[in-house]
Amino acid sequence: MDAGALPPFPLNAWYAAAWDHEVKRELLPRTICNQKIVFWRRSDGSVAAVEDACWHRLLPLSMGRLDGDDVVCGYHGLAFDGHGRCTRMPSQERLNPSACVRSFPAVQKHRFVWVWPGDPALADPALVPDLHWNDDPEWAGDGRVIHVNCDYRLVIDNLMDLTHETFVHHSSIGNAAVAETPFVTTHGDRLATVTRWMTDIDPPPFWRAQLGKPGNVDRWQIIRFEAPCTIAIDVGVAPAGTGAPDGDRSQGVNGYVLNTITPETNGTCHYFWAFARNYRLHDQRLTTELREGVATIFREDELVLEAQQKAIDANPGRPFYNLSIDAGSMWARRLIDRMIARELPPAAQQAAE
Amino acid sequence: MDAGALPPFPLNAWYAAAWDHEVKRELLPRTICNQKIVFWRRSDGSVAAVEDACWHRLLPLSMGRLDGDDVVCGYHGLAFDGHGRCTRMPSQERLNPSACVRSFPAVQKHRFVWVWPGDPALADPALVPDLHWNDDPEWAGDGRVIHVNCDYRLVIDNLMDLTHETFVHHSSIGNAAVAETPFVTTHGDRLATVTRWMTDIDPPPFWRAQLGKPGNVDRWQIIRFEAPCTIAIDVGVAPAGTGAPDGDRSQGVNGYVLNTITPETNGTCHYFWAFARNYRLHDQRLTTELREGVATIFREDELVLEAQQKAIDANPGRPFYNLSIDAGSMWARRLIDRMIARELPPAAQQAAE
Amino acid sequence: MDAGALPPFPLNAWYAAAWDHEVKRELLPRTICNQKIVFWRRSDGSVAAVEDACWHRLLPLSMGRLDGDDVVCGYHGLAFDGHGRCTRMPSQERLNPSACVRSFPAVQKHRFVWVWPGDPALADPALVPDLHWNDDPEWAGDGRVIHVNCDYRLVIDNLMDLTHETFVHHSSIGNAAVAETPFVTTHGDRLATVTRWMTDIDPPPFWRAQLGKPGNVDRWQIIRFEAPCTIAIDVGVAPAGTGAPDGDRSQGVNGYVLNTITPETNGTCHYFWAFARNYRLHDQRLTTELREGVATIFREDELVLEAQQKAIDANPGRPFYNLSIDAGSMWARRLIDRMIARELPPAAQQAAE
Repeated sequence: MDAGALPPFPLNAWYAAAWDHEVKRELLPRTICNQKIVFWRRSDGSVAAVEDACWHRLLPLSMGRLDGDDVVCGYHGLAFDGHGRCTRMPSQERLNPSACVRSFPAVQKHRFVWVWPGDPALADPALVPDLHWNDDPEWAGDGRVIHVNCDYRLVIDNLMDLTHETFVHHSSIGNAAVAETPFVTTHGDRLATVTRWMTDIDPPPFWRAQLGKPGNVDRWQIIRFEAPCTIAIDVGVAPAGTGAPDGDRSQGVNGYVLNTITPETNGTCHYFWAFARNYRLHDQRLTTELREGVATIFREDELVLEAQQKAIDANPGRPFYNLSIDAGSMWARRLIDRMIARELPPAAQQAAE
Repeated sequence: MDAGALPPFPLNAWYAAAWDHEVKRELLPRTICNQKIVFWRRSDGSVAAVEDACWHRLLPLSMGRLDGDDVVCGYHGLAFDGHGRCTRMPSQERLNPSACVRSFPAVQKHRFVWVWPGDPALADPALVPDLHWNDDPEWAGDGRVIHVNCDYRLVIDNLMDLTHETFVHHSSIGNAAVAETPFVTTHGDRLATVTRWMTDIDPPPFWRAQLGKPGNVDRWQIIRFEAPCTIAIDVGVAPAGTGAPDGDRSQGVNGYVLNTITPETNGTCHYFWAFARNYRLHDQRLTTELREGVATIFREDELVLEAQQKAIDANPGRPFYNLSIDAGSMWARRLIDRMIARELPPAAQQAAE
Repeated sequence: MDAGALPPFPLNAWYAAAWDHEVKRELLPRTICNQKIVFWRRSDGSVAAVEDACWHRLLPLSMGRLDGDDVVCGYHGLAFDGHGRCTRMPSQERLNPSACVRSFPAVQKHRFVWVWPGDPALADPALVPDLHWNDDPEWAGDGRVIHVNCDYRLVIDNLMDLTHETFVHHSSIGNAAVAETPFVTTHGDRLATVTRWMTDIDPPPFWRAQLGKPGNVDRWQIIRFEAPCTIAIDVGVAPAGTGAPDGDRSQGVNGYVLNTITPETNGTCHYFWAFARNYRLHDQRLTTELREGVATIFREDELVLEAQQKAIDANPGRPFYNLSIDAGSMWARRLIDRMIARELPPAAQQAAE
């Protein structure tokens, strides 16, 4: 399959569009998969999402205002409800029956608002990716959204291979052990995992502090990719020899790095992330410190990702060479490409295989 | 006719290039209808306009200097008169006979400098659009030029339908009566009008203050479009029942919003406007207040127009849907398209009809 | 020959990439002839130059770090030596034999680091252009590199015809005599010269001060072009009648304006220049004053050159008309075009002639 010949993302998927707290009783414009969408919260708490361009003369509806649960265009006052139906026109009582803007299925789950840019008939809420750690009472944490000027798949590549920690994040979480330890890859139709156990090692400073005990540890990184763009990374350490590799993590500390990366355009993305932990749940200072710490680390990635995108743009058609460390990202890309190929017309699907 | 298939503007027309006071004894570069032109005033007060690129090596002549009535290139010193003829070359006494730059017909009228970017043989000064209120001793006022990043026709649309005042300018001149009152449209070959009379209404604050009397009013808005891009709007109020709708405006106050919008490029324009009134002619404070007030209102339009242009660019080929309020702008666009079609070669004219 | 149909520069040539002092024990990224290259100095003092994109995932190697004489990628830690061979990969002991990045011949001469972007087999150090005045003990001086947003050939044009001094630099070195005096042009296969002698003239203030004597002078400007992009200008004055035109410059002062202009991209360039003189060799204050003075003059040229490039871009296909003053630049362009044509496949060479 030649990835360059396929669209860069499937449309029949739930994409995180915003954190729950970002969608209020006001108009929020955001571009998702090249589609300009305006979001707002209705008075019943549900989320409306419609195309951000008035049917009449294309002015972004987000430049207008909310009137009850309808959006009113800021140019000539046409009003639309959350299903995109026109409910008011200036100077005429009969509404043109064709007057409507496209609406998008939207649901709220795991503290994110999700939107489905593809065929609405296929928008099954059960398909929202699993990021339950983000609002599970057994876990505590917080996160952010950042805007990155790169293809969302470069972020996927980055997260599927954590050896980059050694080189990009050498001042914080990086540690030679990560690059030196072998890993195991598995995959299904929508899921791929990369599992790395570093047993009986001296932990990096971050994990030493979280554990709060001296001595060597068993450290794990289990990367769980859910196509097309969600990655939950199960990370943690336990005192060496206390059974963590065999399933007993009771002496250890465990966190989840939650990531879902939504294409904004072909070359830009919204990167939603959070860090959840299963210890010191009510320590808000720790929650803040962890969120700020991860934010600092991700800024290092952002520099690399944006430079990589510029290099790709400057070298059109240049292939990526793969190393053994790329097994996880190769599977992630294959699963994405399969989702995309399934959306092609049947003849094109055959050609894509 | 498919407007998208036609050029966006006719070339055989007078376009406002500058306010009279902007053209001085120095070089003024300005792009008109995609053509870079340098303007200057000759010692006899007439205006010269030639292509802003030296015949020799294309350096903008506007980077040079004026020497008497000639422009001297700032690179190698070639000089050209206002007819574009080369009058001096460096290091050679015989001038290449072909050495000339294109010159453009230019006239000054109604406080504007007008330029004709098309066939000079057709440049009849009698065709300059009528904006006489701008230097008529019976009227007083002032204006400005602003640069707007949109197709000049979006400004025409904006001015041909004043219901947008209700939504864009709700804090100043907007008033529900405008959107609710029916209007009458007429059109000829070069002119189109939209007439709206709002009788026996409570005037908006602006007109209340201009009239200086309590009580209901008859308010008029008579939009006069002269193809391709000049709009004079006759606006005013008179005490209700004093005969204004029948022609007796003697008890009222009258203003003219003068507008001429010159394409700079296909997607940008120079918007020249003024506000003239027939009362308190010598009140310079009022002149200043009105000019500043209109400037504030037009900044609101500018935001809408530039956002609309971006939305059009992001949705190529997307049609405009029309409402009953769009009758005036539809006629304006038809008259513009007819002017453009007449400039096509005969075969293309047939196809355009 | 239609210059527009040819590539803008030959690849089989030495191009100045940096001043000697710019290449240190750290990574210096610079684009030469559309090719992103990273330079560094090895521990033995030699210069390494390789493509600035990692073989693995294209991240610019210049974002990584130097480890001994190798560059280490800042993403996944692949290391490359100065010949572009991969010397280390993360998490795998066997290196992919194909893993390498392109390296470029590089030499240091006359205080510049030169790089050869074409066929390495042809990179003969004897072909480095002659700018020996830049490190000859008989001469003293200094210079800089500036970045100009124009085709490097516009700088060549500028330097091959110094009549522009009269118009662009009228406040400093300009002098009507330059534009009024005839000149002689010669040319060979790689060299072209323009020689102008202004005998028995009142010198401009700059040369008056350098000579330090009253009275008329004989002034010379001998422009020596070496294809594709190096120009050494022999300039100076001697008291009138002391024999300078016949070869006896012993009573005069002599300088060389050294210029080599390296294409960065088709429309931008690195302009390296220096001014060397054969008098008051140990006067460092004079060296500094001359360098700053030339820098000021070249900023005037920069404004003209960038405006000219914009005008060329706005008028694609528009020809340059030539005057008698352009004889030197016409020869320079012909010699450049011949170098370019020789790099075309045989059939294209025939078409280009």
